[in-house]
Amino acid sequence: MDTDPLPLLEDLIRCPSVTPTEAGALDCLEAYLRSAGFHCERLVFSDKGTPDVDNLFARIGKSGPHLCFAGHIDVVPPGRLEDWAAPPFAAFQADGFLYGRGAADMKGSVAAFATAAADAVKAGSFTGSLSLLITGDEEGPAINGTAKVLAWMKENGHVPDHCIVGEPTSAEKLGDTIKIGRRGSLSFDLAVAGMQGHVAYPHKADNPIPKLARLIDRLAAYKFDDGNDHFDPTTLAFTTIDVGNPAGNVIPGRAQARFNIRYNTEHTPDTLIAIVRDACARIEEELGGTFTLDVVNGADAFITEPGAFVGVVLDAIEAETGVHAKLSTSGGTSDARFIKDYCPVLEFGPLNTTIHQVNERIAIADLRHLAGVYRAIIDAYAGRKPA
Amino acid sequence: MDTDPLPLLEDLIRCPSVTPTEAGALDCLEAYLRSAGFHCERLVFSDKGTPDVDNLFARIGKSGPHLCFAGHIDVVPPGRLEDWAAPPFAAFQADGFLYGRGAADMKGSVAAFATAAADAVKAGSFTGSLSLLITGDEEGPAINGTAKVLAWMKENGHVPDHCIVGEPTSAEKLGDTIKIGRRGSLSFDLAVAGMQGHVAYPHKADNPIPKLARLIDRLAAYKFDDGNDHFDPTTLAFTTIDVGNPAGNVIPGRAQARFNIRYNTEHTPDTLIAIVRDACARIEEELGGTFTLDVVNGADAFITEPGAFVGVVLDAIEAETGVHAKLSTSGGTSDARFIKDYCPVLEFGPLNTTIHQVNERIAIADLRHLAGVYRAIIDAYAGRKPA
Ligand SMILES: [Zn+2]
Ligand SMILES: [Zn+2]
Repeated sequence: MDTDPLPLLEDLIRCPSVTPTEAGALDCLEAYLRSAGFHCERLVFSDKGTPDVDNLFARIGKSGPHLCFAGHIDVVPPGRLEDWAAPPFAAFQADGFLYGRGAADMKGSVAAFATAAADAVKAGSFTGSLSLLITGDEEGPAINGTAKVLAWMKENGHVPDHCIVGEPTSAEKLGDTIKIGRRGSLSFDLAVAGMQGHVAYPHKADNPIPKLARLIDRLAAYKFDDGNDHFDPTTLAFTTIDVGNPAGNVIPGRAQARFNIRYNTEHTPDTLIAIVRDACARIEEELGGTFTLDVVNGADAFITEPGAFVGVVLDAIEAETGVHAKLSTSGGTSDARFIKDYCPVLEFGPLNTTIHQVNERIAIADLRHLAGVYRAIIDAYAGRKPA
Repeated sequence: MDTDPLPLLEDLIRCPSVTPTEAGALDCLEAYLRSAGFHCERLVFSDKGTPDVDNLFARIGKSGPHLCFAGHIDVVPPGRLEDWAAPPFAAFQADGFLYGRGAADMKGSVAAFATAAADAVKAGSFTGSLSLLITGDEEGPAINGTAKVLAWMKENGHVPDHCIVGEPTSAEKLGDTIKIGRRGSLSFDLAVAGMQGHVAYPHKADNPIPKLARLIDRLAAYKFDDGNDHFDPTTLAFTTIDVGNPAGNVIPGRAQARFNIRYNTEHTPDTLIAIVRDACARIEEELGGTFTLDVVNGADAFITEPGAFVGVVLDAIEAETGVHAKLSTSGGTSDARFIKDYCPVLEFGPLNTTIHQVNERIAIADLRHLAGVYRAIIDAYAGRKPA
């Protein structure tokens, strides 16, 4: 009989592991995996200007195929405690739900795949290698977490063949959605220089505001693409404009704005930057002024094309839950953006309806089905190594 | 022989009358005018949130025609003292110039019309009434200055028939420009409400930034009018846009901007507000969102149509300087905006090239010619009462 993941999840929730503290959650998980026979490494990484972060890599088996489960035990702060029905780190049960910060994002998945992996080892139903990549820096700057663990894994011969991230992907019922890619994210800092002056003499000044406004109007209305088989259309969103001029009789000399593009595989950072630069150049031609552009940071768009690996996961979900999952690429970024540089990766986990909110919770039945899906994936993956 | 206005100007400059302090400047002027036979009233006005301000009203004669000279003895701060060739309140002479804060704006004019008026009284060349309206609150909030003196004058039977403001109107040489009106000024605070959201889900948010940007593009390019015989075209200048959203992954729920319109007599505040409201309504139709508009403050556009009064001044300038003055309505606002509600008003004074700058100065020859022009105006005004 399958191990119930609920006790492990309760133990994990009771550790208040708000980023960047592990608060005992990694210790608890490590102890569980060691007793199941996994070789465990604790990896503490540091970087300038960011807090040190503790991570865990656990592996059993030396040969391929190597399937890795990835996740995080860090959680976002609980918010106003008085808004919670029960204390957020108490692992309170009610009406078939387990309440607590991290229950859905994503200690539930971690408990589910850890117990599924331990059961598979015990049952001898798995050949090759199974590993767990658990970070404490997914909700934080993501500098000392998954990215550095992956580099360490590469150096030490632990690059997996396939990876499943347990992020909460289900939208309305468990199993309705898996993510096989993510849109990319590219942010821009934009500044326009003009020349300061007095509002009574606008011809002696060069107001940067109308130039910036026209650029925003153009870019906000720009149609980048129609999307494709796996992706929604690319979108652009301005997040701020700031001049900060308190003087009502002064035309400012500078205006700035920021925007973010969420893009699909029809684009690369280079094609996007070229479009933005071109739009700036056209405004400079029409209205004068000088735009400067800083591309602030990016996560590449990626897709794990449907194939045998995706098939294994879809079949396991359908067998356990009776639901045929939708292949999605929508939403924000996750640590899958780092993993995709090493191996095919997809994301599957519980309902995301309460994540980052008060009274975050997971249905206990869903938690058990989730462990069942992960176990079915492990068993099928070993028997039928995907291409 | 005409009295030299230089000693009086030196005395005035030596009073460091930075708004709102009179620093002895009004005392000095009052003593001068009293000894010339003027009846003087000191008028200290107060208002919530603004400093008390001392003003001077001086009049000689009881009957009409009543010609008033208006001006201010307050000055803007000197700025960095080390940038001045000589201390700003020392009334330093060099190369035919008198240096000092207020030399051109506008203690020079005050000294010139005070000596011209005293000379006219002494010569008996003037009938009717002559008055001086001198404020200490022109460079400040303009709450406790000219506006309140005028109300007091009305209550006390001192409304003049015509008024000349001594603001420095000359652009390249003394006498080249008089101002017969001013553009109006109307400021707007604009806010657009949308709905906050995450940049990864722009369809779930309602970004106010593109709406504001399109409105700015429309308004900045809007052609209000072509100007008219006496006025340049109406202009609109945005002075700031502010969202203040530091979160690069959050679409803001609100954006705001401010702009100022400098308008001519083709428009009134009502026609301008209607144009702006209409532009907002069109954007609301095109892109959704809700604009709110606050009209912050205004100074009406006004014109003193060329006629006998303007003719007297033009003739006096030409007789004294040989220059035929241009009739202008350009530039910022002045206290003439208050006076125009009581009587026809025009502005004439020295070169404005150094005002509000370090090493502010007036050519001593110009100062004497300026007194000559004012004297010629007084004499002609009495002899040929303008319509
Ligand atoms: Zn997560
Ligand atoms: Zn002035």
